[in-house]
Parts: sequence; structure tokens; C-alpha cells
Amino acid sequence: MNPLSQRPIKALIFDVFGTLVDWRTSIARESQRLLEPVGMRIDWLAFADDWRAQYQPAMEEVRLGRIPFCKLDDLHRRNLDIVLLAYGLDLVDDHTRCELNGAWHRLDAWSDVREGLVLLSDQFLIAPCSNGNISLMVDLARHNHWHWDAILGAELAGDYKPKPVVYLSAVAALGLHPSEVMMVAAHSSDLEAAAGCGLATAFVARLDEFGPGTGETQALTAVDISVGNLLELAKALA
Amino acid sequence: MNPLSQRPIKALIFDVFGTLVDWRTSIARESQRLLEPVGMRIDWLAFADDWRAQYQPAMEEVRLGRIPFCKLDDLHRRNLDIVLLAYGLDLVDDHTRCELNGAWHRLDAWSDVREGLVLLSDQFLIAPCSNGNISLMVDLARHNHWHWDAILGAELAGDYKPKPVVYLSAVAALGLHPSEVMMVAAHSSDLEAAAGCGLATAFVARLDEFGPGTGETQALTAVDISVGNLLELAKALA
Repeated sequence: MNPLSQRPIKALIFDVFGTLVDWRTSIARESQRLLEPVGMRIDWLAFADDWRAQYQPAMEEVRLGRIPFCKLDDLHRRNLDIVLLAYGLDLVDDHTRCELNGAWHRLDAWSDVREGLVLLSDQFLIAPCSNGNISLMVDLARHNHWHWDAILGAELAGDYKPKPVVYLSAVAALGLHPSEVMMVAAHSSDLEAAAGCGLATAFVARLDEFGPGTGETQALTAVDISVGNLLELAKALA
Repeated sequence: MNPLSQRPIKALIFDVFGTLVDWRTSIARESQRLLEPVGMRIDWLAFADDWRAQYQPAMEEVRLGRIPFCKLDDLHRRNLDIVLLAYGLDLVDDHTRCELNGAWHRLDAWSDVREGLVLLSDQFLIAPCSNGNISLMVDLARHNHWHWDAILGAELAGDYKPKPVVYLSAVAALGLHPSEVMMVAAHSSDLEAAAGCGLATAFVARLDEFGPGTGETQALTAVDISVGNLLELAKALA
């Protein structure tokens, strides 16, 4: 399974939410910053979890063709409205909702990511292959000082992971063979789908994604490389 | 027409061939490097011009819907085969043709571009909006040490400039209003089309694109800003 024994890897494509950024504490912090001044007193981490819990069901509507493809920003907003209603916070105004929805553009990276991407960029083309839309990825890169070669993923593909078209459109955009591209993610389902398309795979253990000790500690599917962070990945691929 | 008096500009999108890179002398040099060793003795600048002369007619086939959208790499290869045949060079093997077609991924920038993009990137999001495909843009960026926020343009749009969808898909991907985006180009036709979509426009005079003194010295359409290079543009927008 070592990809280095097959075609050389030329590009790494990355899952972003959970793999590169700590969406949970970032969303909790931003929710508190924007909603506490208007009188809200709730468990902000639980609010972040509940907002995120609407993520897969919303994308599934698109994957199944029940609604046309739309940007993740739009799904996030739909999901926010659902969650605010569930919390009895339906008096929050539209301006605040827009600002809060933009919190997904201001997520903080895990501590190894900035340096890890610099090291990996010395050896490989690097691009996100996320369900986040292009402007969301652009803003996260500016916020966290990342330099991508391109923004690939759901918006380019017009569908959401783990649909094969998302991985394959990223590979095609790079002009490469699937085996020359490695998908990097903290989630087994993402890596299993990428491997099914012929990509090499790297698992990164993000133990605290949904709170301390909640993340996948090891891949539940066969992967080419398994590491604890991007610095280890750069070392393993050097 | 000063865009700064309307909505503030948040992103600059760039034409690339001619505006940022000197395709003509780069293609002539690469053609000579690859074809002279196999016995070819021709006027290399004329060969570059003749290859480039097939560019608009090939894209027009796509624009008119006569052939499905395909990457510019594929059109460049089709055009190369046409030109080699016209030069009586049809014995050039496939490997050499592939390598020569890749010369479009190795074009050198005009001397102001690297520093100019750094300065502009401090103030604005920056992205190419070229007819070149994503991997071509990725490779040009690596070759010339540019850092884009995203790769926008024809491949994302599935059609070729000056069709409106190319400018509008770039604006949409950035999540902005057309008036918040400025198209930067050395060609009036490109700027006229962008302005028609509501974008702000900046003309950059590239006097030597088709040989010394052949480029447009001033825009033939109304533009918001007219400059001689990207350093002047950064100063004008500061």
C-alpha cells in the first residue's frame, strides 16, 4: 500500500473541517461573541455541535438530488436558522445571522497546520478538497496564513463528498492520475471514498475534533500513511 | 468611473497570457530547445506566433458550441499538431509534442509581476481569470513564484472568455458583487467584456506582447484605471 512504491505522489489534497481547522471551539467562540451581547446565555460548545449536526443531513439533500447544488455557505445559513429556532433564538436579526454564518470563514487551524503545509508545499502541489465553497476556503487560507496552489473540492465538482466526482474533479483539475494524488483527512469515510477513486490516502489523527478525546484515533479503513499531524506527514513523505 | 467612489474593490482577477507572462519569447525559446536537437531549423518567434494564431479560432469552436468544452491544454495540443503539419514537421514524435505542449506551463512573467502581485495581495484577494486551465495556472504560479488566493477562469466556468459566464463565475466563486471585483488585462476586448458584466477594469499596457511595440498602448474601451505595469497598479489602488 506504500504509494511511494507505485507512481510518485505529486499532489496532496486536504479535507479541511476537522482535519486542518478546529471548527468546534472556533464556532463556539464566534457564537458567544455575536450572540451574548444580544442577551443569549447558552452552552456555546453544544450550540456549535448542534449547528454542525445539521451539516451531513443538509449535504445529503444535495447528494440525493432532492435540492440543486448550492454553496456550503447557503447550507450553513439554512442550518443556522434551524438551530436558532430549536434554541428559541428566532429573534436574532438577519445581520447577526449573516455575520455568524461567516464564522465558518474565520476558523482557527490546529497548531501544526501552518508549518506543516509550508513543508509539504516544498515537495508537493497542495490544495483543499473540502465541502466548503471557494470563498470560504480563500478566507480560511488568509485567516490562517496558508498558501494553496488551487482551491479544489465541492464547488468545482458541483456535488459533495464523499461522492466520487469531488475527488475525481480535483485530480482532473491537477492534470494528474488518481494514484499521483494523496487525500489527507482525519475521517475514515473520506479516505475510503478517495481510495475507492484510486487516490493514495493519509490519515491524520485529530483526537479533539468533537471535544477532548472524541476524534478517530486510527483509520477504520486501509490507508497508505497514518500520522498524528502534518509535521509527521511531511517527515513520512520526505 | 473611479471604482473607489462606488463599492470598494475587494478582489483583482487577472488575464494571464500577455498580461502577466511573455508567452511569445517563452514559447519560441522552448520550441527551439525541444525541436532544434531533432534537426529543426526555423524562425522560432514566427513559430510561436503561428501556434498562438490558432488560439482564438480553437476557443471559438467551444464558444459557439461546435465542440464540447475541453481544457486549453487540449486545444494547445490540437493547435500544435496543425502548426507542425503546416511547417512540414509532422515527423515530430508524440513524446516531444507532449513536452512542447507543456511549454505553456513554463512561461516567464514580465519583470514587474512577481513584486506587483505581492503588493496587490496585501490589499486585495487575487486570482487569475484566464482561459488557461487550472493545472496550467498552478504550474505558471510555481514557475514564477506567485501566490494566488484561488484559480478562477475558463475551467471553472466551462467556457472561454470573453463569454460573460467566465467573469461572472469568478465573481460568484469569490462571493462578491461584480463591482467589488476588478479585471486586470492588457487587452481591450477582455476589459470590455468584464465591464459589460459589471466588473471594474484596469488596463495594463504590454507593449511587446507580439514583438517590440506591437501591444495595445491604451485601452480602446472605457476603463477605470490605466497603468504601465502592476507596480503602478498597486500604487494607483493604494
